[in-house]
Parts: sequence; C-alpha cells; structure tokens
Amino acid sequence: MPRVIVLKLGGSVITEKDREETVDEERLASLAETLAGHEDFVVVHGAGSFGHRYAAKHGVSRTEGTHDAAAVREIHASMERLNGHVLGALGAEDVPAVPVDPFSLAYRSRDGTLGLPLDGIETTLAEGFVPVTYGDVITQREKGATIISGDELVVALAEGLDADGVGLCSTVPGVLDDTGAVIPRIGSYDEVEAYLGGSESTDVTGGMAAKVRALLNLDVPASVFGPDALEAFLADGSAGTRID
Amino acid sequence: MPRVIVLKLGGSVITEKDREETVDEERLASLAETLAGHEDFVVVHGAGSFGHRYAAKHGVSRTEGTHDAAAVREIHASMERLNGHVLGALGAEDVPAVPVDPFSLAYRSRDGTLGLPLDGIETTLAEGFVPVTYGDVITQREKGATIISGDELVVALAEGLDADGVGLCSTVPGVLDDTGAVIPRIGSYDEVEAYLGGSESTDVTGGMAAKVRALLNLDVPASVFGPDALEAFLADGSAGTRID
Repeated sequence: MPRVIVLKLGGSVITEKDREETVDEERLASLAETLAGHEDFVVVHGAGSFGHRYAAKHGVSRTEGTHDAAAVREIHASMERLNGHVLGALGAEDVPAVPVDPFSLAYRSRDGTLGLPLDGIETTLAEGFVPVTYGDVITQREKGATIISGDELVVALAEGLDADGVGLCSTVPGVLDDTGAVIPRIGSYDEVEAYLGGSESTDVTGGMAAKVRALLNLDVPASVFGPDALEAFLADGSAGTRID
Repeated sequence: MPRVIVLKLGGSVITEKDREETVDEERLASLAETLAGHEDFVVVHGAGSFGHRYAAKHGVSRTEGTHDAAAVREIHASMERLNGHVLGALGAEDVPAVPVDPFSLAYRSRDGTLGLPLDGIETTLAEGFVPVTYGDVITQREKGATIISGDELVVALAEGLDADGVGLCSTVPGVLDDTGAVIPRIGSYDEVEAYLGGSESTDVTGGMAAKVRALLNLDVPASVFGPDALEAFLADGSAGTRID
C-alpha cells in the first residue's frame, strides 16, 4: 500500500464557529475541489459549531465522562450531521469519501489509553476509498463515554498507519511568532516556547501549543497551514509551518 | 462482565417491507417498550425497506463488491437512517441505546473472512450501554465493499462476545413445519430438512434455512420467535423455536 497523508480540516475552517451547526459551505466546497484527484489520504475533521455545545451541555470532555446514553446519542448525532456535510462536499468532487465513525471504532481503557483498531481503515484505504473521520464521543472503561478530539485522532492515525505526512489545515496560515509572522520550521518546542507558552501552560482547548507538542512527538513530518495553502501542501508539503 | 444476549430485530419486523424506507413505528415502539428495563444485550437489526434497494441498485451483495464510494455512502446512509429510528424508539423507553456502525468497525479479508474487533463493543456493554448495530456495507480486500447481513453479525457477535443466548425476533412465530405449526426444538438440521430444504438448496436471501444452519453451528442456544413473544424470550428464553 502506498503511504498515506493524514489531513485534518479544522472545525473552525469548515464551519461558522459562532453559528450553531452552520457549515461554511463555500470554504468546504473549495477544499473539496482542491482535494479532487488526490489519492491515499485520510481526512479528520473537527467539530466547529457542531458537537461542542452538546458536549458542553452534558459536561462531557476528554476527561469527564457520561453514562447518559441520550447525551452520547446527541453529541454523536451532531458530529454525524457535520460528517454528512463533509462527505457530501467531497463526493460532489468525486473524492471517494466514506465515513469512519469513531464512536463505533474507538474506545479507551481505564487509564484513558486510546484503542483504535486500524485493519478496517487499512482495508478501506487499500480499496481506494478516502476515510473521513472526526472528533467524537467514545466509550471509556469506568467513565462511560468521553470526548476524542480530531487532533488526538490525527496523531493516532499518523502513528498507526505509518503515515507519510500530516497536514493541519487551520484558520491561521501557520504557527505564528509574536509579530504575527508564520514560523517556517519548528524542530523543538524550545524554539517556540516564547510564543506558545511554557510546557506547564494549560491548553485544554486543543490550541496551538498542544498541537505543536503532539506533532513534534510524531516520527512523521507535519505542516500547519491555512485553507489557501492546501494545494501547496498537497503538491510538495511546503506550506505554512513545517514541524519536523 | 455479565454474559450478554444478542437480539436480532428482523428488517421485516420493524419496517413495512413493501413501502420504501418506512418504519413500522407502532411495532418498533412496542418492542422498545418490552425491552425497557432489561440490561446486557446487543441489538442487531435488519434492513427491511431500507438499505436493500440501494444495494440492489448498485449490484452489491455478500459476494459482489463495489468500488463506487457514492454507492457505499448511499447504502450506508439508508441503514443509518433506519438505525436512527431504532435508536429513537429505544431511547424513548430509556433503553441506553447507542449506535455501532458496521462500516466503520468491520471489514473482510480477501477470502471474505469477517474482521469484527470487539474491544469497543465490550467497553460499551461494560459501561451499561446497549449497542445497536445492523446489516450494512463493509470494505473487503480486492472487492471494494460488500454486504454484511444482520444474521452474519448475530453469529459473529454471539461467538465473539461469548453470548449467553441469541434471539431472532422474526415475522413468523418460529420455524414452521409443513402444517404451519411451530417446531418447538431443533437439535440438528436433519430434523427440519424436510421443511426447509436440503443442504444443497440455495438460500441467498438469508431465509430460514440459512438462519437455522448458522444457529445450529453456534455453541449458544438460540430462539426464533415472533414479535409477540419477545417478552417470553427475555423472561426465560422459552419462545418460538429453540435451536440448541
């Protein structure tokens, strides 16, 4: 099997974050058009204006679980609606997109370790389909169900699929320094600690500091870039900030 | 973990089979009411008037695959709609039902062998949820995607979860003899060959002969019964035809 690219489409990129369950149709269509004709990639999308508010409503997070099945169904259904929009946009450009539902596939053990069986996704990729997965709620031993972020899935997929590269398509054009300029390359966290905060800083919202730390831990080169740079990323991986 | 029951709700039981994508709301609500308060079971439902016609339209079956992602999305989305109705009916009775999407979880190897990772479903059950899964399309090496029937899932789940029992809630009150009477107990296929056909007879539609053969191969006792007998089955397993 050719090696794959794991591409994250940020929730804020594909939705209007301040309007409840509203897709940014134009942006999504444009990204789908750019992806048309490309092969061997997995899409992970965030929640944006979907999912989050139901998770917040029911007090469910990465660490706080719920045993309320109605809450699980509500959070998951919201993410499935967004996933349906993403599949529709990709399908309209003949990208062979198919859904991969984290709630059905993934789970956590007592200590929070993620279980993500990959034989099915590998089969899906080998048959020429493009798996499209997303941040979701998943079951966890002794906690009921907790949240898995799109970023956590990106890392697990990049490692598990021995990916060739990772792209994070974000609302910003890259990791920014204190003048707002894109940092072209990051090799260690020390280089950006001044801009992103120290290793002790909390970053529970999945902000840039956590993304950079997680991507630095990967064996795979990763790029953080804005929507306009997706084409450049797909062409030769040179877009936004390269984390390697 | 307490041992579980695998309960199949036949597609013809919960839908109006001759009306496109029409749920038998009354029947489904009545079954959900009967299930209220019970624990430790997995629900598998068939397709009925959902799913099948899309599979037929695209020429996809248990053995004939497709590489058309749009076909996969169409078949799967139809089954997700039906699953949504089943989850809604169960949720209305406070059954802690959550979806398990076979397309995301299951796959087949080249020779058609089913891969069905069960750690996630075991976690879901251990946390008190009721997984609700269904016949669907799944990816298969070298064939793209093929169909998995609800009956195939029932067998795989019963074996994999070391289930305590299997119930097939069908439109008929059990396996019938040539006078239309329910056969109370079947211990070997020889006993019913006269009514169901010889071992050479084809049964591609997943009819009763295939069900009985598959259930006889299980180590777990199984019952085939009509919707009115669900309560009796849940009470002591004595309903319709017992296959053991």
